[in-house]
Amino acid sequence: MKIAILGGTGKEGSGLGFRWAAAGHEVIIGSRAAEKGERAAEELRALLPDAAISGADNRSAAAAADIAVLSVPYEAQAATLADVRDEVQGKLLVTVVAPLGQPKARVWRLPSGLSAAEEAQLQLGDGATVVAAFQNISATHLRDLDHALDCDVLICGEKAADKDVVAALCGDAGMRGINAGALANAVVAEGLTAVLLGINIRHKISGAGIRITGLPEE
Amino acid sequence: MKIAILGGTGKEGSGLGFRWAAAGHEVIIGSRAAEKGERAAEELRALLPDAAISGADNRSAAAAADIAVLSVPYEAQAATLADVRDEVQGKLLVTVVAPLGQPKARVWRLPSGLSAAEEAQLQLGDGATVVAAFQNISATHLRDLDHALDCDVLICGEKAADKDVVAALCGDAGMRGINAGALANAVVAEGLTAVLLGINIRHKISGAGIRITGLPEE
Repeated sequence: MKIAILGGTGKEGSGLGFRWAAAGHEVIIGSRAAEKGERAAEELRALLPDAAISGADNRSAAAAADIAVLSVPYEAQAATLADVRDEVQGKLLVTVVAPLGQPKARVWRLPSGLSAAEEAQLQLGDGATVVAAFQNISATHLRDLDHALDCDVLICGEKAADKDVVAALCGDAGMRGINAGALANAVVAEGLTAVLLGINIRHKISGAGIRITGLPEE
Repeated sequence: MKIAILGGTGKEGSGLGFRWAAAGHEVIIGSRAAEKGERAAEELRALLPDAAISGADNRSAAAAADIAVLSVPYEAQAATLADVRDEVQGKLLVTVVAPLGQPKARVWRLPSGLSAAEEAQLQLGDGATVVAAFQNISATHLRDLDHALDCDVLICGEKAADKDVVAALCGDAGMRGINAGALANAVVAEGLTAVLLGINIRHKISGAGIRITGLPEE
């Protein structure tokens, strides 16, 4: 699959891109400036010489890809989506965005009363499909393929088939994806990011995550 | 510790009461009608003949206890708190309440924009201290002391000392309590209940829960 990571120069976006490229996907690291995307891609290619990783500006990346992953701070979400709106029509947009307030360990309720994922869906319109995922994973060990990731991914979206696509991407990145219900439920995954950040701060750790228990063994 | 469980005749409240009584606490099962509380207490005493378990109406239970646990459906929260408001002044009120919308697996944003726990704090005033906990535990195995509970408890509240008291109660009930930040963060634990319910429905299980990963071993 051809995956564009919008805002892919950040730690989480590039870490996910690294894992997907290692799993055989074609990855395009998008950034506001093409050169920044290209530089980040080069860095990843140095680690994975056989992988298909390129860099581009966000809009070109979105245009070239089958699926787009939004990995920007919430503050940059609206501008990034405005930039790629036409290019993601007819595609799946997976949003990793989790709004963090001040202080960051405190859950931030957006003035809209919605989750950032729902705001993204409203902005893109019905022609694109937003699925929320990867809000609660730590970027710390993404670039270390030998490190087993001890966390699950909550996947929120309207259609099970779309969530299955994202669950497969979770698997390719070494994590278990779990259908967490409607897109509206993304407000929980987004808020959980602040809770986990607070736990990181209180325990002086970097990678608190969550696991869903009680599920039958695979 | 003398613990009143308001709405303690329900599955979760009575299950927690059972575990706390087994751990040596004095437990008062509160209900709207004293007889209902007494009947539920009798049932628990049959299982734990040596334990200190009594039943009462919610108000008498709250008056007699050191700490009150609110375990009612969200729809009954305001009325129950109005009933016990005077009796819980100067005390800790631990709320287990998680609002569930329609459908129940969909996160319900309260019209106030707040969590149920914050609404409880506003209603009780500064004289009582609300801490949110136990939103995400399954009642299924609470009455089976041999069953290890595979879940953590997110504890939200303003003061670390109060959360320490609740963490000790988590431990007494066989679970790990984790400081999850400010009372405002209860919106995440409350929303997670709907997410877990949806997971239960989709996987035909009864006890999905959460674990926080990445913490140092105790």
